[in-house]
Amino acid sequence: MIRLAITSALALALAAPAQADTLIDNVDGMTLDATGGVDRFTGLLVGDDGRIVQVLRRGDKRPGKVDYFVDGKGQFLMPGLIDSHGHVMGIGFGALTLDLSETTSLAQAQAKIAAYAAAHPDRPWILGRGWNQELWGLGRFPTAAELDAVVGDKPVWLTRVDGHAGWANSKALAAAGITALTKDPAGGKIERVATGGKPTGVLVDAAMDLVEKFVPTPRPEDRDLALATAQDLLLARGVTAMADMGTTIEDWQAYRRAGDNGTLRLRIMAYAGGTEAMELIGGPGPSPWLYDDKLRLNGVKLYVDGALGSRGASLKAPYADAPHTRGLRITSDTQLKNLMSRAALDRFQLAIHAIGDEANAGVLAAIEDMSATYTGDRRWRIEHAQIVDPADFARFGRHGIIASMQPVHQTSDRLMAEARLGPQRLTGGYAWKSLATTGAKLAFGSDAPVELPDPFAGLAAAITRQGPDGQPFGGWQPQERLTREEALAAYTMNGAYAGFAEGRFGRLVRGERADFLLVDRDPLLATPSDLRATQVRQVWINGRLAWDAATAKR
Amino acid sequence: MIRLAITSALALALAAPAQADTLIDNVDGMTLDATGGVDRFTGLLVGDDGRIVQVLRRGDKRPGKVDYFVDGKGQFLMPGLIDSHGHVMGIGFGALTLDLSETTSLAQAQAKIAAYAAAHPDRPWILGRGWNQELWGLGRFPTAAELDAVVGDKPVWLTRVDGHAGWANSKALAAAGITALTKDPAGGKIERVATGGKPTGVLVDAAMDLVEKFVPTPRPEDRDLALATAQDLLLARGVTAMADMGTTIEDWQAYRRAGDNGTLRLRIMAYAGGTEAMELIGGPGPSPWLYDDKLRLNGVKLYVDGALGSRGASLKAPYADAPHTRGLRITSDTQLKNLMSRAALDRFQLAIHAIGDEANAGVLAAIEDMSATYTGDRRWRIEHAQIVDPADFARFGRHGIIASMQPVHQTSDRLMAEARLGPQRLTGGYAWKSLATTGAKLAFGSDAPVELPDPFAGLAAAITRQGPDGQPFGGWQPQERLTREEALAAYTMNGAYAGFAEGRFGRLVRGERADFLLVDRDPLLATPSDLRATQVRQVWINGRLAWDAATAKR
Repeated sequence: MIRLAITSALALALAAPAQADTLIDNVDGMTLDATGGVDRFTGLLVGDDGRIVQVLRRGDKRPGKVDYFVDGKGQFLMPGLIDSHGHVMGIGFGALTLDLSETTSLAQAQAKIAAYAAAHPDRPWILGRGWNQELWGLGRFPTAAELDAVVGDKPVWLTRVDGHAGWANSKALAAAGITALTKDPAGGKIERVATGGKPTGVLVDAAMDLVEKFVPTPRPEDRDLALATAQDLLLARGVTAMADMGTTIEDWQAYRRAGDNGTLRLRIMAYAGGTEAMELIGGPGPSPWLYDDKLRLNGVKLYVDGALGSRGASLKAPYADAPHTRGLRITSDTQLKNLMSRAALDRFQLAIHAIGDEANAGVLAAIEDMSATYTGDRRWRIEHAQIVDPADFARFGRHGIIASMQPVHQTSDRLMAEARLGPQRLTGGYAWKSLATTGAKLAFGSDAPVELPDPFAGLAAAITRQGPDGQPFGGWQPQERLTREEALAAYTMNGAYAGFAEGRFGRLVRGERADFLLVDRDPLLATPSDLRATQVRQVWINGRLAWDAATAKR
Repeated sequence: MIRLAITSALALALAAPAQADTLIDNVDGMTLDATGGVDRFTGLLVGDDGRIVQVLRRGDKRPGKVDYFVDGKGQFLMPGLIDSHGHVMGIGFGALTLDLSETTSLAQAQAKIAAYAAAHPDRPWILGRGWNQELWGLGRFPTAAELDAVVGDKPVWLTRVDGHAGWANSKALAAAGITALTKDPAGGKIERVATGGKPTGVLVDAAMDLVEKFVPTPRPEDRDLALATAQDLLLARGVTAMADMGTTIEDWQAYRRAGDNGTLRLRIMAYAGGTEAMELIGGPGPSPWLYDDKLRLNGVKLYVDGALGSRGASLKAPYADAPHTRGLRITSDTQLKNLMSRAALDRFQLAIHAIGDEANAGVLAAIEDMSATYTGDRRWRIEHAQIVDPADFARFGRHGIIASMQPVHQTSDRLMAEARLGPQRLTGGYAWKSLATTGAKLAFGSDAPVELPDPFAGLAAAITRQGPDGQPFGGWQPQERLTREEALAAYTMNGAYAGFAEGRFGRLVRGERADFLLVDRDPLLATPSDLRATQVRQVWINGRLAWDAATAKR
């Protein structure tokens, strides 16, 4: 960023309309227009408030004097990407937790644990995940003593790769009061030495709770660090705004702290985790847009069913690979309508998790039922809308429903989905194009940290229905592929619309916030594999440099 | 407020240093100087940011052009008053609750209840207090049927004047599931008809809980209304800032909503109700000053003992009127130090409730113990410091302790205090002058809604040690009287200091926020009874008119 000249106070007063402008010029710029078509430009003039004053094309006269001038050197400039479904704090905490999944021996794991503990001396507990004694060739579970040898002064608690066992050191066992006298809980097992029953350090399934209830909740400092970490990770992948699904009051307070002290860079559209958090965070309705449109509580996240992989998704017909079950509802129709009413009455937006076709039909029916009472611009969001009965497609096009979907889930899940659903129901799976065609607004996200928060991977999946390996040939259910422009809209302007943010950000047009990326290639022209490899060089949010590859911690 | 002229953008740019000034001129102005002496002036020039640009004296040249000009017409202008101990939301909720204490017959009470219910159709429950069947000449408790006759469509719950009984209508009894089959709880009694055991509607002592656990918690709208009401009540008495003792997360969210939407007029220095609320509200430390210094979480309120009236205050020697008890500690020395450490470690300010001489000695010992570890500018606050052993007076002068005291408690409590303490211990009661003389900083407040939030009554009590009736002749323990200047300092600059706000507000000097009152008399010259009758005409906060007697709802 080059500071060209600071004009005098007098000149500033005369130079209507803007007072401290930034000109980003000499770029290969692109945005979508109001109808989703591509608009190309070569410069952006941004005002002191971070809003775009003028979009400049080749040949347009440049302002004579500006306060800041940035030479884009011909780089490609595109709108900041909006992830419409993620978990901001989960991304941060996930990144901060010790990850042992790449270790290939106990000694290597021990070294990594020791280094991590040394690097984080102020952590009251050392927490981690991902170990697998099979990969270590150990032939047995590891022991508390093997942990004590590297961290003996504070509790250590590390969960196995499958999440079904935990490995504690002696301090953690002591904190939990686990001794030879402790009985195995129902559904769980305390691994013990052959004689005397002394615990070895590994606790299986329900026995893990014996320790986990003593793991301290994160401190505010930890939350602030998680937020800073999540922001870095998201900006590095070009995400400038995220719909945060399941915001707690603790999360919200961390967002406000960052807003108050000027370290909130990412835009966060928050959906509270349940109606109690909604009321505590928002009060009598959605919050205002805070901190130059960086933060707003839009509404509430509700759950109707579980996930497909664990057969918790609620299906109309039995699972193909488990004919005794159709999954289950977390929330009944009556409960759902009660919760929806409570939120809609105060004009909170509803974002409702529905994976299975029965769950989606249930949400559609609830929306149809409530739309007569709760009129106006509601933008009912169905989160995931993963498996939909084709007979229900058309219902998505009514009442202004938003299909908030995650392209990478399709490529990650497809073999599992084929097993769960059998061949007959696949046409209703991840049916982006079909739902969009009905008139539903399609907003794309990652569900990070469940998946990596990488919108370029999402864009590639969206236009190919293929994974990073190019499989399957021709794409999975390829009739659901989108055009590049449709996919980009789902990651930009539609994401803004889905969060009541259109006109504020999502497109690079006069009056919107200047949120843009400088990247090393044109995503509208790159091959799918090149698109996945897009490198983000700089991220600008609200007209200010928010992340720079040249200086970022990696 | 008269708008004289809007200067042009060009003239604005040239008219250094301020851009949108307000001149309040032709006033009989007064503030305290840095040493607590009186400084008189005739005009204030206030910048666009609400800070004082210049204090103008007779003969000082006035600026040639200002954006707003206010002619004070010779009125008396004084600093806004700081109430260093109150409960903002309690003041608002208290004012919003139906008050039956003035009713003299059942019929009059019924009429008042009916009118209140009609005036508040959106309240899910009708709540009130203050009834007394003795004053009504009823010779019995009132009945549910007598309430049903005036409010039958929603629950009504009214507590007796002494707080030891509640009167429910049939809807409230039904909501609580109370029938003839319900047994009396331990320590409580359900009033019943002679035959059949049907509840009459009145519940005594512990039986009140049967209903109270079903009384809905306030909705965010209710909290917002309570805050608006409290602000009106406080501003009307000249209070421009309050230390809010025992802030909950719900309170804080209401304050932030008001700050976010521009309706926060009062300055609030918040002390969280306990360390959990402290951490949730403040995070890793005190919040920043928010909304132009209108809101900050300074620290945490802790309790060491109870109150003198109920013999909950912890005394060194037995109560004079109950020799079997010395009162009791709510928090032990060890607990207190643990809680203080947790707060002080993260630089939260401590505000510790201590009424009895034993409790005050305990807090002093804890502060002395911690001062070696938690060094620097801590401003340990002792709230009330009501009864202090004269042997402990000098300890208040060390470690920067603040004695946060409430003058009106002295006049309200004196007969009760004499009964509880006997004649020997009165020299340590409400010992403002003695504590200030040791070097402790004296900050005055009201404890509203326990007392009325009226600083003029407090000023009069502070300089007389007499009640509004002029009793006792010569003043109670008159050696503790303060000068007017000392009392005013305790309601202004010392209150700011006690909240880490010195330099921001509390005095009318260049660089501080322009928080001032226009009043109808000079509190430094009025007789004590005239001082109590001071009428506040206008309240200006941050250089803007915040309350005006001419237009205020009464």
